[in-house]
Amino acid sequence: MVRKICVVITARPSYPRVRSVLKAIQASSALELQLVVAASALLERYGNTERTIVDEGFTIDRRVYMVVEGENLVTSAKSTGIGLSELATVFDDLGPDIVITIADRFETMATAIASSYLNIPLAHIQGGEVTGSIDEKVRHAITKLADLHFVASTKAYERVIALGENEERVFVTGCPSIDIVQQALAESYSPTAIFDQYTGVGSRFQLSEGYIVVVQHPVTTEYFESRRHIEETLHAVKEVGAPTLWFWPNVDAGSDGTSAGIRSFRENHDLKHIHFFKNMSPEDFIRILDGSECIVGNSSVGIRECAYLGVPAVNIGNRQLGRDRGSNVRDVGYSREDISDAIRLCREQGRCAKDLLYGGGGAGNRITEILASTPLTVEKRLPY
Amino acid sequence: MVRKICVVITARPSYPRVRSVLKAIQASSALELQLVVAASALLERYGNTERTIVDEGFTIDRRVYMVVEGENLVTSAKSTGIGLSELATVFDDLGPDIVITIADRFETMATAIASSYLNIPLAHIQGGEVTGSIDEKVRHAITKLADLHFVASTKAYERVIALGENEERVFVTGCPSIDIVQQALAESYSPTAIFDQYTGVGSRFQLSEGYIVVVQHPVTTEYFESRRHIEETLHAVKEVGAPTLWFWPNVDAGSDGTSAGIRSFRENHDLKHIHFFKNMSPEDFIRILDGSECIVGNSSVGIRECAYLGVPAVNIGNRQLGRDRGSNVRDVGYSREDISDAIRLCREQGRCAKDLLYGGGGAGNRITEILASTPLTVEKRLPY
Amino acid sequence: MVRKICVVITARPSYPRVRSVLKAIQASSALELQLVVAASALLERYGNTERTIVDEGFTIDRRVYMVVEGENLVTSAKSTGIGLSELATVFDDLGPDIVITIADRFETMATAIASSYLNIPLAHIQGGEVTGSIDEKVRHAITKLADLHFVASTKAYERVIALGENEERVFVTGCPSIDIVQQALAESYSPTAIFDQYTGVGSRFQLSEGYIVVVQHPVTTEYFESRRHIEETLHAVKEVGAPTLWFWPNVDAGSDGTSAGIRSFRENHDLKHIHFFKNMSPEDFIRILDGSECIVGNSSVGIRECAYLGVPAVNIGNRQLGRDRGSNVRDVGYSREDISDAIRLCREQGRCAKDLLYGGGGAGNRITEILASTPLTVEKRLPY
Amino acid sequence: MVRKICVVITARPSYPRVRSVLKAIQASSALELQLVVAASALLERYGNTERTIVDEGFTIDRRVYMVVEGENLVTSAKSTGIGLSELATVFDDLGPDIVITIADRFETMATAIASSYLNIPLAHIQGGEVTGSIDEKVRHAITKLADLHFVASTKAYERVIALGENEERVFVTGCPSIDIVQQALAESYSPTAIFDQYTGVGSRFQLSEGYIVVVQHPVTTEYFESRRHIEETLHAVKEVGAPTLWFWPNVDAGSDGTSAGIRSFRENHDLKHIHFFKNMSPEDFIRILDGSECIVGNSSVGIRECAYLGVPAVNIGNRQLGRDRGSNVRDVGYSREDISDAIRLCREQGRCAKDLLYGGGGAGNRITEILASTPLTVEKRLPY
Repeated sequence: MVRKICVVITARPSYPRVRSVLKAIQASSALELQLVVAASALLERYGNTERTIVDEGFTIDRRVYMVVEGENLVTSAKSTGIGLSELATVFDDLGPDIVITIADRFETMATAIASSYLNIPLAHIQGGEVTGSIDEKVRHAITKLADLHFVASTKAYERVIALGENEERVFVTGCPSIDIVQQALAESYSPTAIFDQYTGVGSRFQLSEGYIVVVQHPVTTEYFESRRHIEETLHAVKEVGAPTLWFWPNVDAGSDGTSAGIRSFRENHDLKHIHFFKNMSPEDFIRILDGSECIVGNSSVGIRECAYLGVPAVNIGNRQLGRDRGSNVRDVGYSREDISDAIRLCREQGRCAKDLLYGGGGAGNRITEILASTPLTVEKRLPY
Repeated sequence: MVRKICVVITARPSYPRVRSVLKAIQASSALELQLVVAASALLERYGNTERTIVDEGFTIDRRVYMVVEGENLVTSAKSTGIGLSELATVFDDLGPDIVITIADRFETMATAIASSYLNIPLAHIQGGEVTGSIDEKVRHAITKLADLHFVASTKAYERVIALGENEERVFVTGCPSIDIVQQALAESYSPTAIFDQYTGVGSRFQLSEGYIVVVQHPVTTEYFESRRHIEETLHAVKEVGAPTLWFWPNVDAGSDGTSAGIRSFRENHDLKHIHFFKNMSPEDFIRILDGSECIVGNSSVGIRECAYLGVPAVNIGNRQLGRDRGSNVRDVGYSREDISDAIRLCREQGRCAKDLLYGGGGAGNRITEILASTPLTVEKRLPY
Repeated sequence: MVRKICVVITARPSYPRVRSVLKAIQASSALELQLVVAASALLERYGNTERTIVDEGFTIDRRVYMVVEGENLVTSAKSTGIGLSELATVFDDLGPDIVITIADRFETMATAIASSYLNIPLAHIQGGEVTGSIDEKVRHAITKLADLHFVASTKAYERVIALGENEERVFVTGCPSIDIVQQALAESYSPTAIFDQYTGVGSRFQLSEGYIVVVQHPVTTEYFESRRHIEETLHAVKEVGAPTLWFWPNVDAGSDGTSAGIRSFRENHDLKHIHFFKNMSPEDFIRILDGSECIVGNSSVGIRECAYLGVPAVNIGNRQLGRDRGSNVRDVGYSREDISDAIRLCREQGRCAKDLLYGGGGAGNRITEILASTPLTVEKRLPY
Repeated sequence: MVRKICVVITARPSYPRVRSVLKAIQASSALELQLVVAASALLERYGNTERTIVDEGFTIDRRVYMVVEGENLVTSAKSTGIGLSELATVFDDLGPDIVITIADRFETMATAIASSYLNIPLAHIQGGEVTGSIDEKVRHAITKLADLHFVASTKAYERVIALGENEERVFVTGCPSIDIVQQALAESYSPTAIFDQYTGVGSRFQLSEGYIVVVQHPVTTEYFESRRHIEETLHAVKEVGAPTLWFWPNVDAGSDGTSAGIRSFRENHDLKHIHFFKNMSPEDFIRILDGSECIVGNSSVGIRECAYLGVPAVNIGNRQLGRDRGSNVRDVGYSREDISDAIRLCREQGRCAKDLLYGGGGAGNRITEILASTPLTVEKRLPY
């Protein structure tokens, strides 16, 4: 009997972490894909992930609007509550055999609870990692709700086991985002086309002459400082003066400060060497990364994809604190001087060695095989 | 500065597990109590815990209606979502320094998420235990969201530490429900008064001549069987024929089956020896237990309070599966013969020895001292 | 092109008011039926209307759990809010051409707002009547949100026009509940079979020797008095002593008082001549009514169906205040003496003349023809 | 006994329509003000009305986050549902004697239902007007839920009476927004200071040399056209070339199209003569209006305040269709040529005569006197 696999995508950064899985489920005769797009993945101002998903050939079964505006801690909680209430109805209606949730954003708790309360086996992609902040709590709480774990590395595997999960239900598959890296690098492309394709705002420049990439998200537990944080980075990048591709942050408590900081800085400074994007296909983003001198900010991309690519990363602040990292990462605090120094060092040092810390590709197929054949269970109990 | 401690009570069985803490907070000059009563604790048909709380001298700061009717798995999830959305507003408004959540019922996840997403330190009473069913997932997920853990036993302590919690934030306090047992036994009382005080339905009888107590809740992952389960117990208790005090179950997915089973059985059988209650003060309930020949059903009271009391317990089915238990417990399946045999054996064998497995009293004061002095933190990270 | 007609049923009494419309839509090749069952229509303890609907051959497209427990004014509002939020998703998903809402219960506002905010033409069955209480506000507010009005009588027509609606969008179709009366009376049936079919509680008796019917709902604006009200009726019916079929009330603010009153009275009095039912098919209920000496309580059935049947009605209190009524109705206050006197007078006087005040049948077909052919509009503007 | 008056403000344009009432309640010893700020009035990107309210000396009792992001018809309905659910709790908690709701935005239905379902008398400011679109339905539905009506004009009075309201509960008070106009004109001010005070984006210019004002909101029932509409206006204003102060639209289904249209146009055209503002104090806005050559767009300000001021208004499209208007209004369709022609005619013709169509000031005091002395009723019934 064909198993129905329901994947819930709630934000732009989750999509590349599951896309190769979606493709493999689509291609499998043993599985039927049910795709739910929710939260900021539906919103224009966070990059319209919904459109990307449709453009790439997937059919969306349900859309769940759940983001309560305000972008503070209260609305994060309220959004999760509304999402939970809605997803319960959606799962009841679609009747999946397995629900898949991705990573550790606050609103993914809605998926995890709805699925586990409905006694539907929950599969979690990307458990067992360590960061800090509210993501840390969310990630491990989801591990305790999940019945099936697809982890990126052996370190993550060991942590999920230590958390009391049954070793027959934890699989080291590598991270699906590495599948996209592999695939993206296999195709030819013309970097300069991105300005036409993704528009954005700011001046355009020759990518062949070297550039850096910036992706900086607000950090939820430091709400009032998000504006100060982003301004330090803006000053540092302005000071370095290198051609820069800057990617807009996700919705999160605090992102008002981040967005406001960027907007205000743009109006008051001459930032001719920076081009701002709201969205990009995962492949193009990877190729842009692969062509860059370094990535700056606090995105997990610097830790994860860039380990595989060997691209130096200036990692700012504590958002990725504790996350397993390769030698490509240079950690700095929220100081414009430290940030600009680190950027300069990265540019001088050049490309690092590849590190298979987060897998070496093939995760999508591996996960799909397990989804098709693993026993469906929802009962578990601490072994200690 | 006085710390504001917000306690959220969502169901009848949670109240005795926190009452001595409430009393101790009230008596402390270093703490201010904020009391939120929510979910089935507000509802007449689950025993009107709200009234009990008010009668016992506590002031309720907020009431949160959140139970979506239907008593199935979908409404469990929806209720939790609505509760989460409401509690976020409540916590934002009350501004507590610490939020306390109790045990592992499905809707307590709303308290845990609202508190942790608002960066308010979350204290969890009764983590680290093992049961099974959805409670098991909920309990350990809450441990991963909580910042402060008040556990009942050293076994529970070891499990919470194994789950990666910092040993400076985990405290073996014993279970506050044992405080009530201690206190209840210290006071004199007249057992027969309970019929007048709590009414209930069914005939009355002399408690001095021996009686058994029944408390049986539906088991969420076996929704369609809850009616069959309760009927087996009803048949067994009818067959034994001993005077019986039967306590109505809580709201839960499946309780429709349980309630319907009881109602229908009552209408079709002569149950002169059974008296049904919907609610009772924790102290009177303890004294009733202490005076009983045995407790029958699947309530944690049989495992926990009765260990301390030394009252034999016939524990039916897998609701308490995995939970640490003393020698007073006799486990049986859902078969009327097994249940009636076990009841007979318990009555013959008589009282067991006291077992301090879940503490020996004083938990309320111990917890309150820690609440007043412990550092307030919300950051944590897996140590492995 | 086939028009999709989405009917939302939220409570037991709404079903007979639309059933002949559902049948006619099903039979029409120009229309496709989308059936949403919501609120108390899904709940066992309000008679499980869902099962009746399925048993009668309809397919339910969506189920919307939305009743927040508590049965007070706050939960009425919250339930409506949750229903609105859910129905918005449902309508967006089903994409109906017309949504149908029935009558004036508080939660029907959720249907009306979701439909009108989504720019889907809203058809309202049973506008233009006059009662009082919150129903009065709800009914006329829905008229102002609706685009198409199917009214029962010329008086109702005149009121809807006076409210500023366009006379091309208001249709006197008669009430569909009269279709059921017509049809029910056309079939033969054996009255005594109802005890086996619908069980209920209480003793059984020979219906051929005469009996009365009681249906009494709580009145929302007099919350604290609902228990007193029901007790007056219980005393009156006990005193009259006639064989009685008593039907359980709907969910509503205050019904806790009503239900509690009935339960407590049953336990403390000998009510051998009363049999309590929770539910009955509309046809059987009509035939039971048609065979009765009179109906007692505050249901609109006494005013509406009984006008057509010519069955005397003792109408208690102000729930039906203002509603157009025929000569079969005898209004009384909440006094056991007045109620028992009125019952005696009705029984002595015997059957009344038929009154076509609410139509004479055929409403289902008439409404369906209009649904298939009327222009679809959502714009309107006060004409004065 | 002091009456508690709870005012709910959900959006920027509602605030000036109630501000003089808030001031008068604050000053009254017979009344206590309870202020709830909700929906887009809490959001930075819709002008942060919350901050304005606090800055002007009011204390906010509750904040209700309720806007679900997406800015489409579905999220309008969902936001209203969430607001209703939240406001029920707020009203239950605050226990007001009267709730005040303003005008006809979609989310005000949440206030109206929560209040009426809790049996709290609802006062409606600005009923009885005629527009079209969903506002029309909302406005008259709220009239049918409201118990007390404060209308702006005798025409509005006649319509509310025609809708079946009791003439003892309808009061012609004039619109409170005219109070602000009166007061604003009584104070001296320096127009050029607005650029420093409200920042905004775009170039600055000498207001003394003449300028026009633009305020254009999306029209909900024409969702897909909102982008095209705004572009026509942008082209017209660009073509006219006059110095322009442009005010950002409110949250509403369709505003994504409007906002996106403005942003994109700004990036692709040279708009040196246009300055964009997100917010302004009501007084400054009035004085800016009073100093302008004309107002362009579809705001009710052009119809209402500008009637009193005698400022010509180019009213675009059907958003104000049906609304009573003075001779200052010139209606045009969505064509850049028509719009630019009308702007030119307005500028040539110059100032119009004052028209007291919406009152002549003093509404705040008049409303407050009635709030303090009127009987509190929630029962009503159609008189026809």
